[in-house]
Amino acid sequence: MPSSTVDPADPVFRLHSGGKMAVVSTVPLTSREDLSLAYTPGVARVCEAIAADPTLAHDYTWASNTVAVVTDGSAVLGLGNIGPRAALPVMEGKAVLFKQFGGVDAVPVCLDTQDVDEIVATVKALAPSFGGINLEDISAPRCFEVERRLDEALDIPVFHDDQHGTAIVVLAALRNAATLLHRKLGDLRVAVSGAGAAGVAVTRMLVAGGVDPDQVVVCDSQGIISTYRSGLTGVKAELAELTNADGRQGDITEALRDADVLIGVSGGRIPEQAVAGMAPGGIVFALANPTPEVDPEVAGRHAAVVATGRSDYPNQINNVLAFPGVFRGALQARAPRITDAMKVAAADAIAAVVADELTPEAIVPSPLDPRVAPAVAAAVADAARM
Amino acid sequence: MPSSTVDPADPVFRLHSGGKMAVVSTVPLTSREDLSLAYTPGVARVCEAIAADPTLAHDYTWASNTVAVVTDGSAVLGLGNIGPRAALPVMEGKAVLFKQFGGVDAVPVCLDTQDVDEIVATVKALAPSFGGINLEDISAPRCFEVERRLDEALDIPVFHDDQHGTAIVVLAALRNAATLLHRKLGDLRVAVSGAGAAGVAVTRMLVAGGVDPDQVVVCDSQGIISTYRSGLTGVKAELAELTNADGRQGDITEALRDADVLIGVSGGRIPEQAVAGMAPGGIVFALANPTPEVDPEVAGRHAAVVATGRSDYPNQINNVLAFPGVFRGALQARAPRITDAMKVAAADAIAAVVADELTPEAIVPSPLDPRVAPAVAAAVADAARM
Repeated sequence: MPSSTVDPADPVFRLHSGGKMAVVSTVPLTSREDLSLAYTPGVARVCEAIAADPTLAHDYTWASNTVAVVTDGSAVLGLGNIGPRAALPVMEGKAVLFKQFGGVDAVPVCLDTQDVDEIVATVKALAPSFGGINLEDISAPRCFEVERRLDEALDIPVFHDDQHGTAIVVLAALRNAATLLHRKLGDLRVAVSGAGAAGVAVTRMLVAGGVDPDQVVVCDSQGIISTYRSGLTGVKAELAELTNADGRQGDITEALRDADVLIGVSGGRIPEQAVAGMAPGGIVFALANPTPEVDPEVAGRHAAVVATGRSDYPNQINNVLAFPGVFRGALQARAPRITDAMKVAAADAIAAVVADELTPEAIVPSPLDPRVAPAVAAAVADAARM
Repeated sequence: MPSSTVDPADPVFRLHSGGKMAVVSTVPLTSREDLSLAYTPGVARVCEAIAADPTLAHDYTWASNTVAVVTDGSAVLGLGNIGPRAALPVMEGKAVLFKQFGGVDAVPVCLDTQDVDEIVATVKALAPSFGGINLEDISAPRCFEVERRLDEALDIPVFHDDQHGTAIVVLAALRNAATLLHRKLGDLRVAVSGAGAAGVAVTRMLVAGGVDPDQVVVCDSQGIISTYRSGLTGVKAELAELTNADGRQGDITEALRDADVLIGVSGGRIPEQAVAGMAPGGIVFALANPTPEVDPEVAGRHAAVVATGRSDYPNQINNVLAFPGVFRGALQARAPRITDAMKVAAADAIAAVVADELTPEAIVPSPLDPRVAPAVAAAVADAARM
């Protein structure tokens, strides 16, 4: 299959030769004296001190600045279940983005199991090595249980970026879009297309940020989630209770009827005719990569503000706006978990970076804007300490 | 307890502030173009290629150059069972030594379990992330089973350095000491004090290198291991079959009677009077750190060649002479395991570095000698390809 072979003309393969990361020593190692401090016998004194007072690990090891980027390879980008070895280039990329944007060291951990119990047990066993756990590309609905169980079991932050990183940036963008359009978040009718990891987290984050849950409808592949649907379990049952107070039923076209906001996190295609049924002057975030659920030009005919996940359109909803600063702030504050308050604080900080510069084509900062990560880290650390 | 507090005047604590290592990106990450190659969408093409051909992970990820340094903190240096968090400074030290001396990236993994089944399951789950596993500071006898089971289960090298790193350097040193003294390895009567990880591995390695097993006696805390001892199981039962053809019995004094070689890997103290019973002009390696089993000056009164594990005496038997080059060579050759032939080849390469410069106070290279790791890597890679 042509897309699965190495194209020698494609610069991405040369770039990836040997991988994208390395470790370095931050201490000298060239003399016997150096070795006697960095290793035996001097290192023993540091071990003894930590054995007597475990909090000293924060000061004398790299763990408190280091995050494990953990996947089982079951939901990688748009490629699906490609397994741990094929997922590693994404995890290396995540790790170097953590370092570049957040100053957080990160290590890719690709697991050879997709069993929830085994994933949880493995990450629990690894936990003394790290200051935080970033779960990545683990398919729904297993990702919800994995994150919940690890969050309960560990006293270090556990954060599934496909859920919350996306949700944080969506909340930031929506806040700014609403401001631009002189709308209040609490007045918006919101339709979320997709009830996987991102859809569930986006819904919860928007509600935490001030959107009225009664006015939110969430669609999965079978249509609008409501208490009239039989057989809903787990997170979908929770969404049925949380959202859609009017018990609306139907497909995406019905969900979008008179909606102010479409959040597309389902992939697939949403017909133009459905988007045309939205209330005028609304907001469309079509976030599937590489193919947005609604073509941006089409969306632009029916909405006032359009965002995608792509770097070649305005308003890129890019998780890199969130995860480096979120972990930087959580680690700095030695927070044992990343709370909803910390997530909302992160969203508000992202939005605030461009709040004085808002235009319909600039509702979020560029992922490369150096103001973002420090602002997010400071806001998250503050929220952690409250 | 004074030894467990942080002494502000001790330079080792300032050196360890924030830990001793960091990750770095090896690709540019400053423009949108950079991100589109190192991360989405470009990285997806690399993932697809690996999904179609898993061997491409060797070329396009860091895994094939990266070793996990894995401990449960149960036998750390001379400190014993201090647990995973207190063990981390040693593992960071090991990781930076791997990089500095072998050019091998390494990641510390400190496990929150001491159960053999859980350790094995955890490392198996992690294995897609790495090119090799270095087990460290896991107490005997569990270390033997952990290594054996992982070696069988995984197709990447698994190597317990406290066993084999020590053994490789001991073999190298003994080879050179024997040469210096115009003795053949096969003629030497060898007493090994200690039947833990190091003692077992040293015994096996010396036999693999040409020492006559019939002429080897191994002592544990109860004395010489022989088939007359009841209740021996596991590795000690194997040693009873392998060594001590004459069925000698008794304590360390009896073990050293007329011995040519003492390998001390037990800790504790071996009385001078026992060392005095050795054959004249022999070899004493007293390797416990920081306190050798025999004081080097005392040993020097009874032996022609003396070595310790300390950097402030001649002939430091230091595992850093072995593990970086061993893994460098194994990774280069894509060896699925580290065989006895590869270990003996490593020992021979270490010995050969100084074979033309031998004196009683220089039977092994300095750990800082830049000739060592490349020579070891080349020899190990050659042995892997046979």
